Amino acid sequence: METKRRTLGVLLFPGFEVLDVYGPLEMVGNLKGMIDIVMVAEHAGAVTSSQGPQTLAGEGFATCPRLDLLLVPGGIGTRKEVANEALLRWLRSAAASAEIVTSVCTGAGLLAKAGLLDGRRATTNKFAFSWVVEQGPKVEWIKEARWVDDGDRVTSSGVSAGMDMMLALVERLYGADLATTVAQRAEYEWHRDAAWDPFARLCGLVD
Amino acid sequence: METKRRTLGVLLFPGFEVLDVYGPLEMVGNLKGMIDIVMVAEHAGAVTSSQGPQTLAGEGFATCPRLDLLLVPGGIGTRKEVANEALLRWLRSAAASAEIVTSVCTGAGLLAKAGLLDGRRATTNKFAFSWVVEQGPKVEWIKEARWVDDGDRVTSSGVSAGMDMMLALVERLYGADLATTVAQRAEYEWHRDAAWDPFARLCGLVD
Repeated sequence: METKRRTLGVLLFPGFEVLDVYGPLEMVGNLKGMIDIVMVAEHAGAVTSSQGPQTLAGEGFATCPRLDLLLVPGGIGTRKEVANEALLRWLRSAAASAEIVTSVCTGAGLLAKAGLLDGRRATTNKFAFSWVVEQGPKVEWIKEARWVDDGDRVTSSGVSAGMDMMLALVERLYGADLATTVAQRAEYEWHRDAAWDPFARLCGLVD
Repeated sequence: METKRRTLGVLLFPGFEVLDVYGPLEMVGNLKGMIDIVMVAEHAGAVTSSQGPQTLAGEGFATCPRLDLLLVPGGIGTRKEVANEALLRWLRSAAASAEIVTSVCTGAGLLAKAGLLDGRRATTNKFAFSWVVEQGPKVEWIKEARWVDDGDRVTSSGVSAGMDMMLALVERLYGADLATTVAQRAEYEWHRDAAWDPFARLCGLVD
């Protein structure tokens, strides 16, 4: 199993959902020497979450280094950011040189709007499914899935699903043993089955 | 069911664990008009997490308003903070006027060191159990529990357990319907059973 060192960029914007960012970050944040984390926003500095607390972006779009992995969270702020051309342009640029681009929740709406999911299989938040689908008519949207791995695009369902997706990515990149250890140390009951999704039925997306 | 408006203070210190803070915050952060969130550290400003990303503390100990609810996270930084007399003094002061004091993970070690769990039932991270127990010899430590509700002290097991604890607290304060809705909107499979704890056995704390 390879032990390539990678840089993970986490996109921040006003109104990001805190667990979309920090759930996945918990699952890679203790892999020191394997994954380096960069918090990036349009401009470096404090970014206010949908829940209120502010996170510091260490880099702006202009200074962000090349990213191996990119995490795009959701949150109410996505409704505004789909119209932010600077953000969509940066997403295309960062994705072009990235190994894998991931999203949590309505973050898939941003990737879709940027055209980065065209022709790909993807999923998103089940409570905001129709809005996200409108952002990407050329995407093969999967209604029932905890996350969808389409190679260099990996998208997860809403909020807490980002933790399961990121653990699956740790497994793919660094092996099942390490992913299991990470989940255990977080005392987290990992949903290993990408098809597990009771929320699709709850939201009436499937019968 | 009461709908009292409450202020939740979240303690930050260098080396806090990100999911200890943001997992519980996700579960109350969207209850606008019901729960107001204050991020507090010894000094206002940026606080670096164990995983690297920085969160802004809006208040320092000297300016923090009275808190109804207090959340104390864990993380590697607790090893240093148990010797921080200013922090322990602030914890005692904030707890004295709070309705409920909670902790996630090794945050219980800080509460224990401050004497705030003496004679109480409490739990903590199962991978760091012995260290936390040393901080509070007068505490009735519960080895097998996702979280322990001892009235005005509610302590949870490691990292991800904080989400289950906070949902249980939302249920206690605002009703089961709201707690269920919050969990569903986060697409989170809530462990409603406080006795669910496979990690106690995994760590050899119980047979």
